[in-house]
Parts: sequence; structure tokens; C-alpha cells
Amino acid sequence: MGSGLITLTTDFGTEDAYVAAMKGVILSINPGTTMVDICHTIEPQNIAQAAFLISTVYEYFPRDTIHMVIVDPEVGSQRRAIILKIPGIFFVAPDNGVLSYVIGTSEKKTPAPQESRAELRELPTGFQAVALTNPGFWHRPVSSTFHGRDIFAPVAAHLSLGTPIEEFGDVINSLFAFPVTHPRTGATGELIGHIIHIDRFGNLITDIKKEDLPSGEVSLEVGGQRIEGLSTAYAERDRLLALIGSSGYLEIALRNGSAAITLGAKIGDTVKIAEGH
Amino acid sequence: MGSGLITLTTDFGTEDAYVAAMKGVILSINPGTTMVDICHTIEPQNIAQAAFLISTVYEYFPRDTIHMVIVDPEVGSQRRAIILKIPGIFFVAPDNGVLSYVIGTSEKKTPAPQESRAELRELPTGFQAVALTNPGFWHRPVSSTFHGRDIFAPVAAHLSLGTPIEEFGDVINSLFAFPVTHPRTGATGELIGHIIHIDRFGNLITDIKKEDLPSGEVSLEVGGQRIEGLSTAYAERDRLLALIGSSGYLEIALRNGSAAITLGAKIGDTVKIAEGH
Amino acid sequence: MGSGLITLTTDFGTEDAYVAAMKGVILSINPGTTMVDICHTIEPQNIAQAAFLISTVYEYFPRDTIHMVIVDPEVGSQRRAIILKIPGIFFVAPDNGVLSYVIGTSEKKTPAPQESRAELRELPTGFQAVALTNPGFWHRPVSSTFHGRDIFAPVAAHLSLGTPIEEFGDVINSLFAFPVTHPRTGATGELIGHIIHIDRFGNLITDIKKEDLPSGEVSLEVGGQRIEGLSTAYAERDRLLALIGSSGYLEIALRNGSAAITLGAKIGDTVKIAEGH
Repeated sequence: MGSGLITLTTDFGTEDAYVAAMKGVILSINPGTTMVDICHTIEPQNIAQAAFLISTVYEYFPRDTIHMVIVDPEVGSQRRAIILKIPGIFFVAPDNGVLSYVIGTSEKKTPAPQESRAELRELPTGFQAVALTNPGFWHRPVSSTFHGRDIFAPVAAHLSLGTPIEEFGDVINSLFAFPVTHPRTGATGELIGHIIHIDRFGNLITDIKKEDLPSGEVSLEVGGQRIEGLSTAYAERDRLLALIGSSGYLEIALRNGSAAITLGAKIGDTVKIAEGH
Repeated sequence: MGSGLITLTTDFGTEDAYVAAMKGVILSINPGTTMVDICHTIEPQNIAQAAFLISTVYEYFPRDTIHMVIVDPEVGSQRRAIILKIPGIFFVAPDNGVLSYVIGTSEKKTPAPQESRAELRELPTGFQAVALTNPGFWHRPVSSTFHGRDIFAPVAAHLSLGTPIEEFGDVINSLFAFPVTHPRTGATGELIGHIIHIDRFGNLITDIKKEDLPSGEVSLEVGGQRIEGLSTAYAERDRLLALIGSSGYLEIALRNGSAAITLGAKIGDTVKIAEGH
Repeated sequence: MGSGLITLTTDFGTEDAYVAAMKGVILSINPGTTMVDICHTIEPQNIAQAAFLISTVYEYFPRDTIHMVIVDPEVGSQRRAIILKIPGIFFVAPDNGVLSYVIGTSEKKTPAPQESRAELRELPTGFQAVALTNPGFWHRPVSSTFHGRDIFAPVAAHLSLGTPIEEFGDVINSLFAFPVTHPRTGATGELIGHIIHIDRFGNLITDIKKEDLPSGEVSLEVGGQRIEGLSTAYAERDRLLALIGSSGYLEIALRNGSAAITLGAKIGDTVKIAEGH
């Protein structure tokens, strides 16, 4: 049985009725659904941004939640539409790399997600996927420009009613994913990471995780500025600080201000970490 | 019985607590309501924009859904507040033209909705309406500036509990509606339509429906550019393209870009279609 | 028993997944919760703005609704996290002044909330509060940067299941609150108020309540302009007008336009009211 809980992550914005159309279709099939909007202002067609955002939040939802992640620039083309099931969690999405962090490609690669191409990858053990090839679950007629409404929404709704994933189409063993960025070790032993997200507060979230850090004292270099040591709270210093943020990534922040504006930082910029100070 | 489902379309924005106040009033009357936000960022007082938006989405909701459409520049004046019931669907709105597309005035008129005045029109057969004249269903005291909270919300909530529409006030036979734009035929036989909506992706939605198009090959002219033929998916070409969008209207789009920005297009601009190429 | 209804007011924005993370945590604990977003675009760290906004809306919700108000610049520091219970209503918030209007500090003070410091104040009779010191209700591990997800959300969820507030921590008798602005009487007997909020329509909401006004005719001065008399509806005049808005505050508005833009007005600006004209 599904949980009856569906989340929505899209680049559809909040100025149009596209998100509401999906919700209408879902409620027409399963009136008991609870829906949670994760974000609808993903930059248009920015698959990497949606991939990162869903990765920071899906584990906080109840067992059997269904996550729709619809950033779909190739809608109406030959790209596949899929369900991915990992233990206790469902995803409904186009097969274009938007689930890359979920699949967890873990090689140490340097290009930022935006610049890299998604490639077919074998699913890890315990993961199952189907291509949505069974039109019996679609809303007809299917618009070639809005599979969110006509394919993904009705599929998610039927999934929330407990329909087994095999009924939605052909079982597949690989999905498209891009190489997720990881910090690398530089020539003089320093750790070199990247800014992968900038939040509303101007906090700079990097691809450096807590476990990547050296165990002792550290100093950081970002945007020509130096930060000595790690803090534990935003209010701890009145100048730029670095801390492990709520998703486990190293983050650069400025109390009551925007680190992004202060540093003129943007996604893809490097952050260097050295031991000692 | 109502469906217990209420949708909300307003120009109240998301920076204030106006939408939440309506939801609080609704849940105080019917705690079992499911509410879906369609859009709250209608341009302030833009009745035509709300009228178009609700028209693209209401048919995707379950039977007996109640659609609140509150763009109400004349709030507190003599304009009527109404319920419109069409088969299986309810609307709660000010009587100012915001339901023009629902009523479906179908004459071939040329002015864009923004420039035309709403006029009283007889309701089509099968449509019923009441003016909200029974204060027994209102939240007291009634603010003269916020009927959304004090009249429309409690009325929608009681409607969702199954109260018959006749109890809310006087039956009426006509509503204000503006002439909905339609394409016209130009001097040399070409079809002349207008841009009626620009979505978040910069796609230009026109008032030309699939059934208005000539059956053979077509070529389009918009913003000084020519487009040959119709496409079926956004990813089909790497330049400007035209296709039938998800609401059945002809749409101009640009893959991974904004047709609106590329063409400098705005609402009301003309789009010309000729047979052949 | 709680009502199962939780509202959310934050400065987390809608571009990130922070709000959704809180909702996931809440639904994991109480899948039957109904959640209503009040506003997530409070200006980052603007405690006064959130304090005002929640004050205009909480009374419209059903008995036993739980209002989460999470604007929390000192997260991870020694500031307290609290539940405030007033008759029939719960608040879950950091103890930083964000509930100042709820506590209702009523002295006639002049500084705008933004400029004044929150101070510890005794709770009025009938109000109860606890500090959230019992980690048994928290989501573990607790991030030092996101108590919204790890402390406030799970506490609100358990509260919605009917857990008595005493179980969440130590009973306290005072909370931090800032002096709420009130109009004062000027040298020549005029009433001097302030703009405390500007809404999406450009309406200027002041701290002057209906009961503060002289009983006869009045004239207003704001931004170098004079307004004679009070109106009752936005559509009543085609120029600047003043009326009592939907939250009971005197408001300056412009029909189909923005009083804020027309007057170049900003929060904190003074509005003067004199009897007669």
C-alpha cells in the first residue's frame, strides 16, 4: 500500500496553473491524497538543481511517500518516464538525471553537474525501476508538452492507491544519471570543493560533506576570503563563517547578511580547505 | 453533497496573510476541506488573467469541486458576489467578468480581454447562479475591503458541506462577462490571433485553438519572425517553434529558452497564420 | 486534544526545501495533520514582520490550531525555543519577540519594532508557556542550524496529537517581546502613527486602530499628501484614500494602483491625523 502522500518538485513556477492541473488529476484518482509542495521554482530546465534539492529532503518524509520530480525539458521526445523504488520510497520522474543524487553515483569527479552529461547507469542492489509504458494509467488525451499532468500525475495517484510498480510498464535495470560532484585533493594536499547551491539567505552550500573534512583545525578559502575554523551556529560570529549545514554539507554563511552577495559567489565556484591555520 | 475540495485563485500574493485568513475561515466551518492553491500571483486587479487561468484548469478537478476566483477590485461597492454552478462544478467569485471563459462567450470579437468591458449576459442552458445576498452564511463583522475572507470563504465552506446554492441568496439569470478574444480572418485569408498568456518558461500562449487552424501545412508570423510548420514537442527544434500546447491553444516556444524574451513579445501582440509555406 | 491543524510562518522562502523538510517531519509523526502555509517570504531575519503578520491572522483559525512562527536568526545559540498557549490557541516559536503582538504589550511607545530590542516580559493571566527542554520530542540528530526541522516541527506534530505542553519542557513565566508601536498624540493634538506593513497591492497599513481615531471628521497627512475623510471601499475614490482595513488598522490605498509607489512610502514612515478638515 502507498502512504497516500505525494510530494511535488517542478520548474513549473507559481504564476501558472500547471501545478494545480497535476493536483486536480491526482485528486480525481485518489481524493485521499495528501500533497506537499517541495519547490516549484526550480530554474527552468535546471535538472541538476532539482536533483540536489530533492536529495536534501526525501529522507524526512514518511515511509512509502511518492516524490514527483518533474523537470522535463525533453518532454514529448523519446526520453523515458519512470518510477524508481528504493527501500520505502518512490520517485516518479523523467529519466534525465533528475534522480542522480538518489542513485548516488559516488565517483570523485570534478565537473559541476550543470556541465556534465547524464549517462546510463546500472541500478544499485535493492533499487527497482520501471519505464512508464502502460498507457492504461495515463490521462487521455496525452498532451505532448505536459506529461506532468497526463502521465506522471495519474501514475503517482495510482501508485498512492497501492498499485504495484510492475503494472505501470517494463522493468528496467539502468537509469540516466550525471556524475555528482565531490571534492578532490589538490596538489598541496588541500581539499577542493564547489558551491552546489545558494539558498534564500545567501548561504553557500558546498559539495564537501562532514566526513570529507580533516579531523583537526581547518582554514577555508572562498572568493578570495579566508575563514579560520568551523562554527556551529549562524549567530556565532559577526563575520563570514563556515559550518556543517542541516543537510550535512559544509556551508559558508554570514550572520544577518548574505555570504553570496558579500563574496559575489556563484554556483560552481571553488572552496579550498587546508588543515591547520 | 459537495466534494470537500476547494481551489483558490486570487491576486492576494504570497507575501501577506490574506490567503491564509481565507483558509482559516474555511477550516473553521469545514475542517475536512481539502484546499488546492491554483495561483495567488495574478497581477493585482487583472480580471482577464484570472479568467484565462481558471479556464485552463477547472476541468481537471474532481466532480463537485468548488473554485474560488477572487480578483475583486470593486470589493465593498455594489458589484455582486455570486455562486455559478455548471454541471458538476461550482464557482464562487465576484460578478466582474472573472468567469468569462467559463460562461464561454463565443462571438468572434477582436479586442483583447484587458481592453474590453464586461457586460451582462444571459446564462447558457444548464448553468445556475445566485447572488450572495443571505448574510446568514457570512463571517461577521464583514470588512468592506476583504470579502474573500468574510463572504466568499465562508460561503465556499458551507457549499463544501452540501448546502444547496439557493440558500445563499437570490437566483439570477445573467452574469457580467467580457468578450473573449478569438482569432479573426484577415484581408488575404490569413488567421490573425493574439497572445493571451505568457507562462514561466516564456512560452507564448495564443487565442488560436487547434480547431481554428487550416488542415494542411501552415506558416506563422510573430514578432517579425517566421515559423514554418507545427511541432509536437518543445525539444523538437533548436529554434523558435509553434505547437498545440497542453490547454489546446497554439503556443510559440523556444527550446531551453524564452520565446517571450527572444521576440520581445507581450500580451495582446498578434500572431498571423497562413496556409502553405 | 489538538485540532490536527498546524500553520507555518517562516523566512525560509519557497526556493529551497526547508519548509518541505519540516512538513515531512510533521507528517512522519502525525500523518493526519492538516497544514496551512501562512507566509514563507518574511524578509530574512525580520522578526517584527513575522510578529505583525501572524497577529493579523491567527484568530481566524479553528480552536486548538498550532501556529509555528519560525524566524530564528539566533538558531543554535542560547535563545530559548518555546510553546505559548493562550486560550484555545498554541504557538511554537523561538523566544525572540516573534510573538510580541500575541502577548500584546500595550504601552504607548514610539520606536518602530525593527529598531527596538525585545525584553523579557511577564505573561498575561491565562497565558502558559514552556521552554522546549525535553529532547525526547526532537528529531535526532539536531542540526545546530535548523531547529525548524529538528525541534519545532516534531514538537508541533506531537502537540497536534494532544501531548500536554508540560511534557515538552520547563514551565516559564516570561517571554521576550518588543514594544509594539502605537500612535502617540503630537504637540498640537494630532495623532501620529506609523506605517507598519505594506501589502502586495501597495496598501500602507498603519499602527492606528479604529478605536484610536477621533469620532468626528478627520484629515490625514502622509508622504506630503493630504487625505480628507475616511472611505469604506477601495473603489470609492479614484485618488489616494484612507479606510479601516480588514485587520482593523487604518490603511492608505489607491484604487487600481499602489499607494506605496505613489507616495514613495516605506515602513516606519509617519501618518498624521487631525480632527476636522
